[in-house]
This record gives sequence, C-alpha cells and structure tokens, in this order.
Amino acid sequence: MRILAMDTSNQSMSVAVIENKQILAEKTTNVKRNHSIQLMPTIEYVIKDANLTIDDIDRIAVAKGPGSYTGVRIAVTVAKTLAWTKGIELVGISSLKVMAGNAQQLKGSLIVPIMDARRGNVYTGLYTYQNEELIELERDKHISAEEWAKELASKHKTVQMIGTDLEKHLPLFKHCLKENLILLPSYQQLPRASVLAMLGAQAETIDIHTFVPEYAKLTEAEENWKEANPDDLGGSLVEKY
Amino acid sequence: MRILAMDTSNQSMSVAVIENKQILAEKTTNVKRNHSIQLMPTIEYVIKDANLTIDDIDRIAVAKGPGSYTGVRIAVTVAKTLAWTKGIELVGISSLKVMAGNAQQLKGSLIVPIMDARRGNVYTGLYTYQNEELIELERDKHISAEEWAKELASKHKTVQMIGTDLEKHLPLFKHCLKENLILLPSYQQLPRASVLAMLGAQAETIDIHTFVPEYAKLTEAEENWKEANPDDLGGSLVEKY
Repeated sequence: MRILAMDTSNQSMSVAVIENKQILAEKTTNVKRNHSIQLMPTIEYVIKDANLTIDDIDRIAVAKGPGSYTGVRIAVTVAKTLAWTKGIELVGISSLKVMAGNAQQLKGSLIVPIMDARRGNVYTGLYTYQNEELIELERDKHISAEEWAKELASKHKTVQMIGTDLEKHLPLFKHCLKENLILLPSYQQLPRASVLAMLGAQAETIDIHTFVPEYAKLTEAEENWKEANPDDLGGSLVEKY
Repeated sequence: MRILAMDTSNQSMSVAVIENKQILAEKTTNVKRNHSIQLMPTIEYVIKDANLTIDDIDRIAVAKGPGSYTGVRIAVTVAKTLAWTKGIELVGISSLKVMAGNAQQLKGSLIVPIMDARRGNVYTGLYTYQNEELIELERDKHISAEEWAKELASKHKTVQMIGTDLEKHLPLFKHCLKENLILLPSYQQLPRASVLAMLGAQAETIDIHTFVPEYAKLTEAEENWKEANPDDLGGSLVEKY
C-alpha cells in the first residue's frame, strides 16, 4: 500500500510517501512560511520524487490536530479534497501521536508529546509502546503545564517528552520529573510525515465528508462566546467544512 | 552556525540544512536513482526551502563512507567542490555513525549500524551514548556477519541494530543476540542528513584537498590486484581525488 502523508499542524511542514513499510520520499521544513501556498507544490514534488503520480496513491494520512488552528485546517482541507477528487482512502491521525511516534520503544516508558498552547498551557497526550505498537493511554488534551507535570510525576515512570515547544516548559518538567525525564536529541523532535504515514497504515479509514480537525480545546472565539452566553448549549461554532 | 549536510552513501539520498540545533529543511529519498544527477538540484531545493542561499552556509557535513563506492564519491565530490569554491568549512562523518545517530539514548546499550557488503559480510561499527554524546567504541569495519553476531553476543549488553539492510541478516542476529537485540521502527532506519548535520556541528573541520572517502575495506579491484601481486607493498590504488 502506498500512503501519502501530510502534517502542517504547526510551524513545520512535513510530506512523505511510503510504500508498505519503506519510506520512498520525505520532505520536512521548519521555517516560518505560508503552508497554504507551500503544501500543494510540496506534495507534487514529493510524489514525483518517489517516482509516482497521485494515481498511484492508495491512502492519504493527515495530521488532524491539535495544533495551529490555520495549520491544521490547511492539511485537512487539502487531504480531504485530494481524497475526494481522486477517490483515495483517508485516515486522520492525532498530531500529538505523530510526535509520539518519534519516541523510543522503551518498555514501560511513557511518551508525552508537548505543544505549547500559550498562557502556561499545553496540548499533550499520553502514549506508550505495547508490542511494538504505539498506544494512546489517555485522550489528547489541553491542560496547564504545571498540573500535567505533577500528574506525570505521580506515575513514577520514565517519561519521554517530545516537541520543539518543549524547551519553553522544560524547567518545570525537569523540576517535577527529575531523573524520570528522558529527552530525545533535537533532531528527533520535529514531527515527521513518514511516521504519520506508518501510523496511518494501521488506522481505520474515515468518511471524507464528516471528517473535521480535532483541536482538543475550544477556540478563543468559542470560549469568549460561551462566557458571554452561558445559556447557549449549542455545539461547536467551528464551521464544519 | 548553519550547516548543509548530504548523504548519498547508499540507495537513499538525504540533504538537510540546520541552524544551530534546529532543522530548517530536510529531504530524504529512498528510490533507486542516479544520485549524480539528483544531488545538486536537491541541495539547491533544500537551501531555498530553508529561505537561504549557499552564501549563508557556514559548514558542509558529508557522509564519508563506507557505503556504495559510487554513492559515497558523489556526495564527497560535491561537498568538496562546494566547500572549496565557496570557502565553506568541511567536515566528514562516518556513514555508519549517521545511521547510529537514529538510535535511542539507552544507558549502556550498544548501537550497531549495519550495511550489507555482500557474500555474508557487513560494514558495521560499534557506538554508544555517553552523556548524550554519540561515541565510537570501535573503528568502523568490514566483517563477516556471523563473526560479528557472535562477537556482539559475547558482550552481554542490549544491542540496537539499525539499517535498511539489516533485514537480510536479521535471522542470524536474532539467533545470536536473542532478547538483547533491540530493533527500531522501520521509519527510524533510514539515514537522515539532519542527524549528519548535528553530528557535523561538533566534528573537527578537515582539509578539503586531502579529504578522501573511507570505504572500510579495499575495493574488489584492489583485492584482486593484491592477490595477483603479493609482493606489491604500495598503498591504495584508489585514485585520491
């Protein structure tokens, strides 16, 4: 099976094509850029680089959030459009799980991806490897970094933390986790579309038209609305596109 | 410091630009291709993708072998030419060390990159992490896979084995190392120019004109020559280019 994978959840942009379990081509950029302009040409380039055309692709895997609101939407929209127009299977994988996939397969070790969510908060999740498979132990969430650090410390296990945003919260996690904190080398911090593709190989396909990003929290506008309109019990105001 | 890194030692080709410890852009292809045609356009593409020009590059890091004879020469020649014409620092890193850099930083664990060298032989090395630094414990070498498997087993330590060629020798290493063998996920097997760049940040610069690839063994032609001319004590017949 040939999988095209794309992740634009944050500043970095990564696109890859794999065939079965082999990476054919991958491109990762971590420069402040306009993903909406760059993504399609990059997809074209990577597919060509793999000696393929879009018609050779059997499945598209997209990082479905959380992350930058605009960033997540770009890859999800492009993935849905390509999948629909070309009749290709679509899978969505948590952007945090993609980061967790960079971690080491240590027995009993917890894997914690970190994205900064401003104001002392993080987007994060709790993962581990079981029989060489990356397992989600808790749903991805939006939480205060301090609370999360204490919660992780209370588990008394080694914790591999991952993410380019980690640096911002590192003193806190170091203080709480002490020698249980395992850091990965800096070159293993960036999300990789090849990892997304591998995770996407095992995931269940989703319905293209009802698929929406997962932000793990309400948008600021939604939060403000809720605060101003406490009686409004309606669902998300995020446009289902 | 901005580093441009390139590795064409084997079937895969990887080019990256890092700035300090951040990856700016990276491209990796693992399709049978003519590296001699692809490398320069890829370098141009990756540098542009990092929003830079060649004049912004402070150092070039190249994988200096072992590996495919032609492959190693392509990156080394391009790196030397660019470094010389643009007056850029040059460092050469073992292609096996680049592979080892994908491994996990487990305390006391040995890291063993494997490249197939045909006829039951491998190019390999012995690495480990000490204080978050990747250390070479033995010089890279050319050895029979069977002999190497027994030698590693006698060390009674966990061994992380890496390389897309590993599959070919896996039954042997599994048999000898048993539960001490640690395998990495397939998406961590491919050599990454970003890893090469990070390793290159700490390496000592070399003299551009005397720098030659390291093949870890004589070429077949040299071996045949030596066999036919046992009295010839002269040095390598490989042209110093």
